[in-house]
Amino acid sequence: MPSKTNDPKRKTWLETPAQTDFPIQNIPFGVFLTRDDIITIGTRIGDFAIDLGALHQLGYFEGIPLTDDIFLQDTLNDFIADGRKTWRAVRNRISEIFEESNADLRDNSDHRDTVIFALDEVEMQLPVQIGDYTDFYSSKEHATNVGSMFRDPENALMPNWLHMPVAYHGRSSSIIPSGIPVHRPQGQKLPNGATEPIFGPSRQLDFELEMAFITTDANELGQPIPADQAEEYIFGLVLFNDWSARDIQRWEYAPLGPFLGKNFASSVSPWIVTLDALEPFRTASPKPEKELLPYLEYTGKKTFDINLEVSIKPENKTETVVSKSNFKHLYWNMSQQLAHHTINGCPVNSGDMMGSGTISGPTPKSYGSMLELSWKGSKPVKLKEGGDRKFIEDKDTVIVRGHCEKTGAARIGFGEVSTKILPVFKPKKK
Amino acid sequence: MPSKTNDPKRKTWLETPAQTDFPIQNIPFGVFLTRDDIITIGTRIGDFAIDLGALHQLGYFEGIPLTDDIFLQDTLNDFIADGRKTWRAVRNRISEIFEESNADLRDNSDHRDTVIFALDEVEMQLPVQIGDYTDFYSSKEHATNVGSMFRDPENALMPNWLHMPVAYHGRSSSIIPSGIPVHRPQGQKLPNGATEPIFGPSRQLDFELEMAFITTDANELGQPIPADQAEEYIFGLVLFNDWSARDIQRWEYAPLGPFLGKNFASSVSPWIVTLDALEPFRTASPKPEKELLPYLEYTGKKTFDINLEVSIKPENKTETVVSKSNFKHLYWNMSQQLAHHTINGCPVNSGDMMGSGTISGPTPKSYGSMLELSWKGSKPVKLKEGGDRKFIEDKDTVIVRGHCEKTGAARIGFGEVSTKILPVFKPKKK
Repeated sequence: MPSKTNDPKRKTWLETPAQTDFPIQNIPFGVFLTRDDIITIGTRIGDFAIDLGALHQLGYFEGIPLTDDIFLQDTLNDFIADGRKTWRAVRNRISEIFEESNADLRDNSDHRDTVIFALDEVEMQLPVQIGDYTDFYSSKEHATNVGSMFRDPENALMPNWLHMPVAYHGRSSSIIPSGIPVHRPQGQKLPNGATEPIFGPSRQLDFELEMAFITTDANELGQPIPADQAEEYIFGLVLFNDWSARDIQRWEYAPLGPFLGKNFASSVSPWIVTLDALEPFRTASPKPEKELLPYLEYTGKKTFDINLEVSIKPENKTETVVSKSNFKHLYWNMSQQLAHHTINGCPVNSGDMMGSGTISGPTPKSYGSMLELSWKGSKPVKLKEGGDRKFIEDKDTVIVRGHCEKTGAARIGFGEVSTKILPVFKPKKK
Repeated sequence: MPSKTNDPKRKTWLETPAQTDFPIQNIPFGVFLTRDDIITIGTRIGDFAIDLGALHQLGYFEGIPLTDDIFLQDTLNDFIADGRKTWRAVRNRISEIFEESNADLRDNSDHRDTVIFALDEVEMQLPVQIGDYTDFYSSKEHATNVGSMFRDPENALMPNWLHMPVAYHGRSSSIIPSGIPVHRPQGQKLPNGATEPIFGPSRQLDFELEMAFITTDANELGQPIPADQAEEYIFGLVLFNDWSARDIQRWEYAPLGPFLGKNFASSVSPWIVTLDALEPFRTASPKPEKELLPYLEYTGKKTFDINLEVSIKPENKTETVVSKSNFKHLYWNMSQQLAHHTINGCPVNSGDMMGSGTISGPTPKSYGSMLELSWKGSKPVKLKEGGDRKFIEDKDTVIVRGHCEKTGAARIGFGEVSTKILPVFKPKKK
C-alpha cells in the first residue's frame, strides 16, 4: 500500500532543499502553533509546515473517514487512535496532494496561503499527550558497558538480560519537545568513600541517545499483544534524549530503579515518522544468543536501519559530533518490546511512548552516553574548538539527529532534538 | 476554615446509617455514571450519591467562582486544578446545603430528585485521569521485611533508605476502580535453583496495602516544591491496592526495578477524601533516625491516623481479615515525598497519583502483603471457613478498607476497594 508514496522518483511541486530529512516520501506528523496562535496538527515537507486542519476544512481529505475536528487538536492522540488504516490513507493522500503533477492545491494560491507555512513561522509542540512512558534497556552494548563500570566486567549483563527486553517506567510529565531548555538537577549524592549523602547540583549530567515509538490503543486490561501483531499498534518513531544525572541515579537506584536521576527531563524531536515511511529501511535484528520464550519469537525483519548522531555545542562555539550509532544495533526490537510489555495484560493506549534505552554500538565512538564515551569520566571527550567534556556542562546544547539513507530509496530523516542546559534553578527572592 | 464543616455535632437532613464512613463531615469527591448514563462529578453522604453537576446547574454553588461545566466531566482533574481555595469553598458549601436546618434543597422535592441518587443506582468510575503514577516505599517495617527475606536480615535496609523517601515510577494505564476484576498475570519466572526462566501464570500473586494521594498542578519544570508548602498541592487520599506478582518481580527487577510484576493492575477506592476532612486526625510521623537533609525537613504534624485493614474473601465464602495496619506507621510523610519528588525539578500535575508503598506495621498481623504475612509462603494464613493462603488464589476477592475515628470527631472513612482475581486470560478461538 505505501509503495507509491515511498517511490524515490516521486517529486513535489514545493521547493525543497536538495538534501532534506523531509522529502515527499516522509510525511511525518506533528503539532504546531501557527503565527495566528492557532494550534493544529500538521506535516512537514522540506522546510514547510503544512496545516492538516486547514487542508481538511478545504475538503482535501474527502473520502477518508475522519471527524471534522480530528486535526484541530493540540495532540495527535485521537488521530493515532483512529488506527493504521486511517494513518495510511491520510499519508498517501498528502503525498498525492503535493505530488508535482497535481494542480489542485498547487494552482490555488488562496488555499496555499491558508495551508502552507514556512517552518520558522510555526512553533512545534509535544506531538502527543503521553499517557505512560516506558523506557527499555535494549542495547546489549550499553547494558554491558554500564554493568562493566558499576558491577563486574566478567558478569556485566544481569542473568535476565538475554531472556527479556528489560524495562522500567519513566515519568511522562517531564517529556518536552526540542528547544525547551533544562535546568541542571540537584539532589542527593554519595561522595566516593562517604557513608552519608550530600546535597547539591548533579556533577554528572548526561544525555542518552535513544529513539522512542508511539503506540495506538492496543489492548484491554488482561490481554497480551502477540509479537507478530505488535507493529499494527505502532504509529511511528521520534528521536529521544533521556537526560540522566548519573551521581543522583547511582545513590538512589537500588532496589527500585532510577527515579530522580531521570525524571527531571526527557527531550523528543517534534515530528513523528511513521513505520510506513521507514519501510524501505527495514532490517534484521541481531541474532538471539539464547533461545527465546515463544511469546518473544517473531517472523521477518522487525527493526530499521537508522543512522544516529549526537553533538555537543558549547555556548557561542561550533558543535562537535561525539557519537555515531544506529538504531539497528538494538538487541531487542519494538515488536518484542510490545509483546513483553503486554504479556501480563498491561494495557497500552494511544499516545504511550516507549523509549529504546541508550543505543550504543560496538565501537567506543558509537556509545550513546557520556558515561560510556568518557568511561565514567576517565577519558574526557575532546571538543573541536578546544576543551573537553566528561559530562555535560551548563550552557552546553546537546543535539541528537537521525536519518535513513540507501541507494534506491529517498532519504528519510527525523530532524533533530536540541536541548540547552541551564544552571540550577534559583527561586526568585520575594 | 474547615472547622464548622468538621464539627462532629453537625447533622444532615439526609437519612444516614448510624455508623458510616461518609457522614456530613466527610464530603469526598468522585465520578459516577447515573441511571440515565450521564457521567458527573459527585459526593457521597451516607448511602447517597450526590450529583454536583446538577446541584451547580440549579445554582447551589452561586458565589463560588466555578466554570459552568466544572462538574459535568468524566474526571476531577479540572476541578482539582482550580486549587485548594476552591475545593474548600465547594466542600463547605455542600456541608451547608445538607445541614439539617437548611431547607433550600431539603424541602424542594424536584431538586432532590434531580440531585440525589441511591448509591446502588450509580456506577463509580476512576476519579481522575492519572497523568503519572509514582509509588513510594515509605514503610520502614515493609522495607525491612522485604530486605530480610530477599537480601540480608543484618543489612535489611539499603543505605539510602533512611536518607530519602525511595520511590519508583509505576504504570497509570492499569489503575482501575474498585469492582473491576483482574486476570492473574503470566510471565517469566526463575524456578528455585534454575538458571533458565520458564513461562507461566504467576504463582505468587499478592496485594499491597497502600494509600495514594492525588495532587493538583504544583510546579513548573525545574522548580522544587518546599516540604512546608507541599500540602497546598495535595487534594486528598484514596485506598490503594498495588497488585504484585512476586515471582515475576523477583526475576525481572534487577537492575531497573519492578515492571511486569506490578503493572498489570492497581486498584483504587472511588471516593477521594480531602485533607480538610482528615484534619482532626492529623498526627506526628515517626522520629527520624538519621539527620535529614534540609529539603526534607518540615514543621508540624504531617501525617494522619487512618486505620486500615485487608480481607480475603474466597468465592461463596465469608471474608477473613488478614491484616490491620495504620497510615501513621509510614516513616516518610506526604510532604517529604512531594518535596523529594520535585527537588530535581520534576513537574507534578493535577491528577497525578502517589502511592505510599506497602503500609506494614510493627507486628506480624499488621504486615501489608501476603509476602510478609505468610513470610514468603512459609507461614500460611488461616481463613475463617477453613483452608489457608500463602498468596492470592483465583476467584478470591481482596478488600481493603480504611477509616479514622477518635473521641470528639466524626468518623471519616474511605469505604473500600474490592477486587476479584480471575484466572489467566484466554484469547477467544477464531
